[in-house]
Amino acid sequence: MASEKGVMLLDFWVSPFGQRARIALAEKGVEYEYKEENLRDKSELLLKSNPIHKKIPVLIHDGKPICESLIIVQYIDETWSDKAPLLPSDPYQRAQARFWADFVDKKVFECGGKLWKLKGEEQEAAKKEMIEILQILEAQLGDKKYFGGDIFGFVDVAFVPFTSWFYSYETCANFSVEEVAPKIVQWAKRCMERESVEKTLPDPKRVYEFVCYLKKRFGIE
Amino acid sequence: MASEKGVMLLDFWVSPFGQRARIALAEKGVEYEYKEENLRDKSELLLKSNPIHKKIPVLIHDGKPICESLIIVQYIDETWSDKAPLLPSDPYQRAQARFWADFVDKKVFECGGKLWKLKGEEQEAAKKEMIEILQILEAQLGDKKYFGGDIFGFVDVAFVPFTSWFYSYETCANFSVEEVAPKIVQWAKRCMERESVEKTLPDPKRVYEFVCYLKKRFGIE
Repeated sequence: MASEKGVMLLDFWVSPFGQRARIALAEKGVEYEYKEENLRDKSELLLKSNPIHKKIPVLIHDGKPICESLIIVQYIDETWSDKAPLLPSDPYQRAQARFWADFVDKKVFECGGKLWKLKGEEQEAAKKEMIEILQILEAQLGDKKYFGGDIFGFVDVAFVPFTSWFYSYETCANFSVEEVAPKIVQWAKRCMERESVEKTLPDPKRVYEFVCYLKKRFGIE
Repeated sequence: MASEKGVMLLDFWVSPFGQRARIALAEKGVEYEYKEENLRDKSELLLKSNPIHKKIPVLIHDGKPICESLIIVQYIDETWSDKAPLLPSDPYQRAQARFWADFVDKKVFECGGKLWKLKGEEQEAAKKEMIEILQILEAQLGDKKYFGGDIFGFVDVAFVPFTSWFYSYETCANFSVEEVAPKIVQWAKRCMERESVEKTLPDPKRVYEFVCYLKKRFGIE
């Protein structure tokens, strides 16, 4: 059972959503207990803590569960507010950060899945869509250091976990992220210089092995 | 073009998402210019203000556009923070409010659409799903006055616009919301006692006429 006090994260190593929570906790310097879930045999604690969606990540703080990754990141930002603010203080800038994090949520993961699940013309259409998504994000980043400006923040936390999937996207769909969105690749490298990101993100080759395992499991190829 | 100063809302009368923004603005007592959009011939201002999604509602404040209804409601709450707080101040309660508003976003609208778009067994499956959704929300409301307790707040603003679609859901799919979720119906009545809600929500019969118009336009039935 969850410890009554303290911080615990129910997670799965390759999940970009779980990685958001891990990066935010690391930015804040919060110590926590990490519990790797077996998603094919979910723990009682996960099912009890997230009875609605039954999904990781779940953050359990002082025995109380918080679900949905962007909600978790905002909770972390509001609870440990004395260090490394992730959302800006200005309401308009906050709205902009929420908009772009929501854009990543609605677009990148779903389209990324299509790149390794689909073939032929359908995969080509998904590749075209992913290139458009990356170019929209590239234009939004522009020449800024991070999405919010000079400070690593909410949109960076939301998006950077997907960069360890870029190699899989490229390999499955035969294109180069660097060619279509070079500034995004540079931004990903800058993010990787942060300990919070570098210690959280898995090796892209391991992600690709996981994608190959999923393809086999779902009978693709 | 947008006035450089002041508040403008680009919206469409029957949209539950637009109604969220209208209710939040009314709760805060903010005066604003309302611009009804023709969704089959969107204005230059809408396309310029929301180039990514090209959707209503868009709130334009001092010439700056804010998109996505729940982000707009949070912006309104943070900008006019001196009156009628919509999100609670405690981080855990805030996370809970965001979770349930997100649940409404992910479940109610899409399932509601299936109720009037589908037929036969597919419609029956959607009806079963809607009943489950309503019962989950009923359990979450419990015997509280509003979703957050005694104070009308974020989850109420997110969910109450859909209550003016209940009559359409019931008529299209032949069931009674009152029978499956009586506390939700009582809650909807309590919300309607608020001027912000009563002045915003359209007559359920007019919503149903709109649904019939959509069915005809999409060649359903």
